[in-house]
Amino acid sequence: MKIALAQLNYHIGNFESNTAKIIGAIEQAKTNGADLVVFAELAICGYPPRDFLEFTEFIELCENSITEIAAATKGIACIIGSPTKNPRIQGKDLFNSAYFIEDGEVKKVVNKALLPTYDVFDEYRYFEPNQDFSCIEYQGVKIALTICEDLWNINDNPLYISSPMDELIKEEPDLMINIAASPFSYNHDDNRYKVLSDNSKKYQLPLLYVNQVGAQTEIVFDGGSFVFNEKGELLDQLAYFKEDLKIYEFADQEIKGYTPIEYKPWPDVKQIYDALILGIRDYFYKSGFTKAVLGLSGGIDSAVVCALAAEALGAENVLAVLMPSKYSTDHSIKDALDLVAALGCKHEVVAIKEITDAFDHVLEPAFRGLPFNVAEENIQARSRAVIVMAFSNKFGNVLLNTSNKSESAVGYGTLYGDMAGAISVLGDVYKTQVYELARYINREREIIPENSIVKPPSAELRPDQKDSDSLPDYDVLDKLLYQYIELKKSSRDIIAAGFDEELVKRVIKMVNKAEFKRYQTPPILRVSPKAFGMGRRMPIVGKYLS
Amino acid sequence: MKIALAQLNYHIGNFESNTAKIIGAIEQAKTNGADLVVFAELAICGYPPRDFLEFTEFIELCENSITEIAAATKGIACIIGSPTKNPRIQGKDLFNSAYFIEDGEVKKVVNKALLPTYDVFDEYRYFEPNQDFSCIEYQGVKIALTICEDLWNINDNPLYISSPMDELIKEEPDLMINIAASPFSYNHDDNRYKVLSDNSKKYQLPLLYVNQVGAQTEIVFDGGSFVFNEKGELLDQLAYFKEDLKIYEFADQEIKGYTPIEYKPWPDVKQIYDALILGIRDYFYKSGFTKAVLGLSGGIDSAVVCALAAEALGAENVLAVLMPSKYSTDHSIKDALDLVAALGCKHEVVAIKEITDAFDHVLEPAFRGLPFNVAEENIQARSRAVIVMAFSNKFGNVLLNTSNKSESAVGYGTLYGDMAGAISVLGDVYKTQVYELARYINREREIIPENSIVKPPSAELRPDQKDSDSLPDYDVLDKLLYQYIELKKSSRDIIAAGFDEELVKRVIKMVNKAEFKRYQTPPILRVSPKAFGMGRRMPIVGKYLS
Repeated sequence: MKIALAQLNYHIGNFESNTAKIIGAIEQAKTNGADLVVFAELAICGYPPRDFLEFTEFIELCENSITEIAAATKGIACIIGSPTKNPRIQGKDLFNSAYFIEDGEVKKVVNKALLPTYDVFDEYRYFEPNQDFSCIEYQGVKIALTICEDLWNINDNPLYISSPMDELIKEEPDLMINIAASPFSYNHDDNRYKVLSDNSKKYQLPLLYVNQVGAQTEIVFDGGSFVFNEKGELLDQLAYFKEDLKIYEFADQEIKGYTPIEYKPWPDVKQIYDALILGIRDYFYKSGFTKAVLGLSGGIDSAVVCALAAEALGAENVLAVLMPSKYSTDHSIKDALDLVAALGCKHEVVAIKEITDAFDHVLEPAFRGLPFNVAEENIQARSRAVIVMAFSNKFGNVLLNTSNKSESAVGYGTLYGDMAGAISVLGDVYKTQVYELARYINREREIIPENSIVKPPSAELRPDQKDSDSLPDYDVLDKLLYQYIELKKSSRDIIAAGFDEELVKRVIKMVNKAEFKRYQTPPILRVSPKAFGMGRRMPIVGKYLS
Repeated sequence: MKIALAQLNYHIGNFESNTAKIIGAIEQAKTNGADLVVFAELAICGYPPRDFLEFTEFIELCENSITEIAAATKGIACIIGSPTKNPRIQGKDLFNSAYFIEDGEVKKVVNKALLPTYDVFDEYRYFEPNQDFSCIEYQGVKIALTICEDLWNINDNPLYISSPMDELIKEEPDLMINIAASPFSYNHDDNRYKVLSDNSKKYQLPLLYVNQVGAQTEIVFDGGSFVFNEKGELLDQLAYFKEDLKIYEFADQEIKGYTPIEYKPWPDVKQIYDALILGIRDYFYKSGFTKAVLGLSGGIDSAVVCALAAEALGAENVLAVLMPSKYSTDHSIKDALDLVAALGCKHEVVAIKEITDAFDHVLEPAFRGLPFNVAEENIQARSRAVIVMAFSNKFGNVLLNTSNKSESAVGYGTLYGDMAGAISVLGDVYKTQVYELARYINREREIIPENSIVKPPSAELRPDQKDSDSLPDYDVLDKLLYQYIELKKSSRDIIAAGFDEELVKRVIKMVNKAEFKRYQTPPILRVSPKAFGMGRRMPIVGKYLS
């Protein structure tokens, strides 16, 4: 039996394009002699559809697409993810399902049992967990079909009280297929490899695994679909960060023609770079925009965002706006202009002194000579946001946010100022990782000016201001933040791990106090196991522990 | 047996104040001869603790509080909600539990089985569902103790496949107790009454029900705890929107000394008014702020917010900033000043012409004489946000957002402009309901100027602009929005219900296109069954159906 794995980039709710793409892959698989073509979890509608699932019309459109796709499977079979209605009155109204369609006919519907409901996942919000297990039989092959999380209950502290494969294995299947929507983070592929390999080993079956690829607002799918033999050895892999379709022959209980290969993950920085490029590109493409705008300060963050945007969208579609104030240094303007020249993107220079003077003047009677403080600092950042948003409103360019994860974490940013934007490119990238990205972007030639990389970071909102005036070195800060945000450790444990007590308490307090700011920031392209946004849900008005 | 129901206002994560409050109520109950005192669901830590639950330190602090509270129960018993660790390796690490503590000792832990995971609820994100049921025995009384949702699986399309009371009833209990954290919406109390009454009737047992009271950022708990007899008849009720403690005697299988009373819900507008007052007050109190600032336009929305804030915080703590532009009408300024005078709150007048002229001037070279459009309109709204935020940064006043649900729905607002604020007071109140609130506020004397109520609404961002230039009448708009947002109907069904086809498509498209804006708005005080925010999770980059 020849089995095609179709790793495609879906668009949530775009049934027309998803269905056309799926039927195209079925045709291609058929042309190349495949007997079965396998698509990802919720391929019909894209993942995650979120509360679209609560609209009955949305479910009808999924069903219509299935009908259309079924009609395209004459002489072939396919496995494809879709929500389906729960026929029972009791329980949630939907299942997260996989259709098995053969020669134009739906032969079986397999439902997902383990519903991830943590971090960015909300599956139990919508779906009833399956409790009824059986294999698919096709061309004399018994297939144990599971959906994503169904294979993930395999560690020492399992999240669920049962495992679907423990049921399915009783029917003595020949092969495992798992269809997934497994989002990218820089360390997730390693876990995924291990979990899938462990499943193959445990159940002593070959495993074909199909992931989604493409970005859906903040969530990026990296593809990289796997093929394992019955010993858990990797036989082959589909492309990362792009669509792919490959056909494998299963006969005599094995995948033919492959010998085990080594699993070689990419360096984190290369993964993050590719994820951000895909994230930007799909955000624009799927929302129908082509042009971006951003504020370019001469600092490292906006330089990296500008370079990523130029790569993702084409330099001609990127407008960089330089907005110097009286506190901007000459080298900042030069560094920004050097970057614009290196990339070949458009730019405008709009000095903000006249604006901030006008604010100071109209506020003078009310502020009664009170000393310069954060109010005046924020007026500068917010005036810049008004300007870039005016460009956005006037010319239709979408504003890219340039805040990084370190400053977003400690609240070192101005709400409605530099925290503005339609999508945050670096909001899940710590400052030290931003430097790595800059070096990576410069791997062949100097795109980001060396000076932007080596100079001490500064917000330039008051004379001679440096980030290090109010923040520890980013090397220390980022490690500390990782302990608190990614690992969710207490201040006690972080101090015990060797960090300075006063610093730990100060930094954690800054993180906690900034929850209200982060609540109002744009969606953040997720590249880490714990990004700000949907995957991290903290109270705003709560008493924090540290 | 005398049973005290303690309906208290908790603060999420504030173990010190919650524990002190709980011990205070135990002392009060003891003094008044109670044998048992009953607290709400997750009373230990407040509801919803969200991802605080993922910090092991947080769970330890819950356990410490339980130890402290147990020590205060000499000679009395208590039932109290708290997260507890799941002793099994399999499944989620926590249960949502109720401790039964008697005379200083934890005698039993009852776990919640039905975990609401819809709208604002995320319980399966954190908790393992209970599958093991038994009653509490105390002073010869067998108590069927359940937690909130455990009693809600009683309708024709049950969300869960089992019901805890169906198990507990097998032990022939004498009494039902349900501890809850059941959030307010203007129609929720009616459902709650019916569901609880139906449980009493179905299981033929008296029911004591304890709810939380108080606001936790966007979620408001209205209290209103119920006491039912074994026929489902209402015997008594605790106060709405404030703390309360009452003692009931259970003997001879019944609650002594009460005869059935009629359940009389308040008018919606009174409920919403009280919920918003409590929402504002607790937002400030629990986050340690006292003073508010808001932009006052002379229109109805900001007038209502100003009046609510003055009631919640004291007029002396409210600063209204009038920011007229060249498009502001004289009557707007007069209406705003009349309101300030009626309330006795502080005000400042800061004309924005100098600011907007400065923006126009610095943008002139780039905008090259392109016609006035939404860019210039938004510059006005955003300049005002810069000004009110400057007041906030200079004087420590918290910015109240004044957008209403109708304009938030259709995107009739400026991101980083009038959509700014720390908390949105009216973001879940449709414009037609804002008028009702204004009338309610004026029920005894004219506080909101009559002119603000009767004049046609206008954003005043261009000459002679009216909301009705680009939006249908709010009477029609709000009804249409309700069909789409609250009822999640498709355009087809809304048209079938009698709405104009072209209008339905235009309005739904406006709602869908504004998702990216709403993603970045402040938390919204939730008063309806479907508020924007945590309870409504739509894709940003998705292809919408209409």
